[in-house]
Amino acid sequence: MFEAVELGQKVSKADFKAREPELWTALLEAQRTLREAGVATLILVAGVEGGGKGEAVQRLHKWFDTRGVRTHAFWDATDEERERPPAWRFWQRLPPRGSIAVMFGGWYWDPLYRQVRDKAGEAELEREAARIVELERMLSLDGMLIVKLWFHLPREAHAQRMKKRREVQRHIAGVAGEGDTDKQYEVFLRAAERMIRHTDTGVCPWWLIDAEDPHYRDLRAGGILRALMEEHSGRTKAAVPATTPAAARRKQATVLDRVDLTARLADQAYKREMKHCRERLTRLAWRAYDARRSCVLVFEGWDAAGKGGAIQRLTAAVDARLYQVIPVAAPTDEERAHHYLWRFWRHLPRAGYMTLYDRSWYGRVLVERVEGFASEEEWARAYEEINNFEEHLVGHGVVLLKFWLHISAEEQLRRFEERGRLPWKQHKLGEEDWRNRDRRAAYLAAVDDMVAHTSTADTPWCLVPAEDKHYARVDILRTVCARLEQALES
Amino acid sequence: MFEAVELGQKVSKADFKAREPELWTALLEAQRTLREAGVATLILVAGVEGGGKGEAVQRLHKWFDTRGVRTHAFWDATDEERERPPAWRFWQRLPPRGSIAVMFGGWYWDPLYRQVRDKAGEAELEREAARIVELERMLSLDGMLIVKLWFHLPREAHAQRMKKRREVQRHIAGVAGEGDTDKQYEVFLRAAERMIRHTDTGVCPWWLIDAEDPHYRDLRAGGILRALMEEHSGRTKAAVPATTPAAARRKQATVLDRVDLTARLADQAYKREMKHCRERLTRLAWRAYDARRSCVLVFEGWDAAGKGGAIQRLTAAVDARLYQVIPVAAPTDEERAHHYLWRFWRHLPRAGYMTLYDRSWYGRVLVERVEGFASEEEWARAYEEINNFEEHLVGHGVVLLKFWLHISAEEQLRRFEERGRLPWKQHKLGEEDWRNRDRRAAYLAAVDDMVAHTSTADTPWCLVPAEDKHYARVDILRTVCARLEQALES
Repeated sequence: MFEAVELGQKVSKADFKAREPELWTALLEAQRTLREAGVATLILVAGVEGGGKGEAVQRLHKWFDTRGVRTHAFWDATDEERERPPAWRFWQRLPPRGSIAVMFGGWYWDPLYRQVRDKAGEAELEREAARIVELERMLSLDGMLIVKLWFHLPREAHAQRMKKRREVQRHIAGVAGEGDTDKQYEVFLRAAERMIRHTDTGVCPWWLIDAEDPHYRDLRAGGILRALMEEHSGRTKAAVPATTPAAARRKQATVLDRVDLTARLADQAYKREMKHCRERLTRLAWRAYDARRSCVLVFEGWDAAGKGGAIQRLTAAVDARLYQVIPVAAPTDEERAHHYLWRFWRHLPRAGYMTLYDRSWYGRVLVERVEGFASEEEWARAYEEINNFEEHLVGHGVVLLKFWLHISAEEQLRRFEERGRLPWKQHKLGEEDWRNRDRRAAYLAAVDDMVAHTSTADTPWCLVPAEDKHYARVDILRTVCARLEQALES
Repeated sequence: MFEAVELGQKVSKADFKAREPELWTALLEAQRTLREAGVATLILVAGVEGGGKGEAVQRLHKWFDTRGVRTHAFWDATDEERERPPAWRFWQRLPPRGSIAVMFGGWYWDPLYRQVRDKAGEAELEREAARIVELERMLSLDGMLIVKLWFHLPREAHAQRMKKRREVQRHIAGVAGEGDTDKQYEVFLRAAERMIRHTDTGVCPWWLIDAEDPHYRDLRAGGILRALMEEHSGRTKAAVPATTPAAARRKQATVLDRVDLTARLADQAYKREMKHCRERLTRLAWRAYDARRSCVLVFEGWDAAGKGGAIQRLTAAVDARLYQVIPVAAPTDEERAHHYLWRFWRHLPRAGYMTLYDRSWYGRVLVERVEGFASEEEWARAYEEINNFEEHLVGHGVVLLKFWLHISAEEQLRRFEERGRLPWKQHKLGEEDWRNRDRRAAYLAAVDDMVAHTSTADTPWCLVPAEDKHYARVDILRTVCARLEQALES
């Protein structure tokens, strides 16, 4: 999830100055339009300590006409508040139609805090999340525009900020300023990940923001707000925002930029590693069988990235009775007669077995999105549907791993040409492949969104550098072994 | 909730025979239309033991073309099923587009059973309910028509059936056949009530059916199905059923028929009782203040049913510093600028205080529904919104009581005429009152739905016989005292 916004994106001061006026004007204009249309806007600002939430809100105050904006922080509850149901304080501060409210943390802060401090359980979190989802859905149906911004900092940057803050604000006794910052970061992020995942709906999605560079952070926050507000303009009460504008989703970099495509494995090392991994996996697959732990492996990636080869190398190490490979192509008639997730449910492995999906339910948010087979409304809500589906799997103890095999456009071209040249590879190259290649930019955006919305500690996306096939195969085998081992030991 | 279907409705055999052919033909026709439109229909049949679920499904089999219907019971999970996430078995049996599936219990059975047998907690139930809501929403968005029928039996009838069943099926060791039937009924109903309440959404509402008389039961089930299927015909995938057809809601009797309008209190008894209750309430109000227990009282009822008088008698017993009466008329500008629940949130009492709402948030499903101020989609989803709102209250320990003051049309006319005659009462009678009177049938249906959807053990509707003002006032005072006492002792 957060890896999608750990891209170190930066905007120079000069660049910021150059781009600010247009955004500023547009935000003012959007605010005016929404005021006239009687639309209430609620901006929820959350994120890690030190992410600059305060600074960003300061900037928003500058950009908006402040007469129409009220900002609310929820420190310790007052007497008045404590004596009423906890949600009362938020209801008191909801923006009336035509105005904007900014809430620090909002209804997310307490449940998150209870997870971190009181170690409230999964069920508690899910219950709170379900209530929040209902509340946000209700307010959205009433015409409110709800924008949820999450300011994220990578571990390193977070530690530095905390250190600095402790030096500067020695006189303030803050929660986050105390104790083992690193450990706290870990715990908080884990809870946040689960909370975000459970409340990341098609109607009110979360917007993760890379908050390391203040200029980038504020431009991004402003840009998202601008796009959402402009899109919402003139909406009537009945027409709920089923989806989100492309303009808000646009980022300069994507999570795939983080993949190190120079990773290589020499022949010697490959053979040695492969042998080792294979033996390890053979044993692990039998151990999983004995322990009745199932395993679901998802393979996605660019055309010609080497999914087939990687799957072959993996299955070669597993007894044929223990696994099943499900190649996902166009659905059958019977599959078409059901919900799109049905075809994946039916092939779930029994206890102790392994299913490998060669392409998967992620088609909904990849090819179906890019090709327009699914409407924007359909694929936008699919993240939530997919998360719920995977929740069933991991909740049942299934080991779930998802691989995206990444190659550069150049390497892909080389492989396509090779396929065209070699008679025994020609069947692997179709017109579709060339068309998909033309849509690389659209796919990049789709992959980036996919990782942001569906990758968590329990259901991770592994972005595999596949420029070198050897490296990719070993990397995947190693990852599967490590995860299985971990699961079997827990 | 269930009181709305404990009306002892009956249909004679002759009547059933006379009405069956039309329903039968219509169901076949609806089935054909939905098959051609490629709509999948899922019928979930649930309810108390002995409610005749099996018999009713038999009848449906007769009425439908069985080639397009598959029925699934979920007994003990098979090996295959146990080895996969629990939802797998349901996914395997979802109806493909164009066909009908009937599920006994469906995804409701296990969570309910865990509540009753394992005494799983509130959080567990809410979590399961939230997952079900998501699943049903997702399938509905995919175009599936989901009909949830709940077969209810009053306690007496249930006990008789169970006794008979035990005699007949002595050789079958059934869960419900053992032990203290009455106690089990209680526990099961309580759990069912909570589960229904949490999964009773605008998109997939529950249909409660009075199952005591088999003929009535089957006609009602068939009638609901018919109305929903006919309404769903020709719907495209995109158009989700946001609401439910009036035809399905129509019943012959309403919950108000159960109110005994002959209840009277003689002058002597009234004075004595009133004095006693008043003293009791005075003490209780102070005790509640000391214990910091808040109280929210809702007053709804027919025009001229005596809400004002009852509120006066009640507040006369409570120290003026401890309560607030909120008369709910047309919303102010400020209130109109918010969600309709906002104006009620703002007046919630502090700990230890009491708020009386003279009319309330139920306006949404009463006057706004009847007058068309809220669209059908809006008021249909309001039950869920109101339930969530009241959940905040009772979850915070607020004592919540809701009164509907019931009078006959004749008595109302008498009081209107009296108001017209007496100068000091003329201000209480407006044109609106006469118009509302003309809409009595529509209000009756609205009250019936309201009670069915929003009355539970924690958030009860008290239907007060108000034909005699004395009786009504004492009845209300007594109820408030009893409830407060109970709350203060727990």
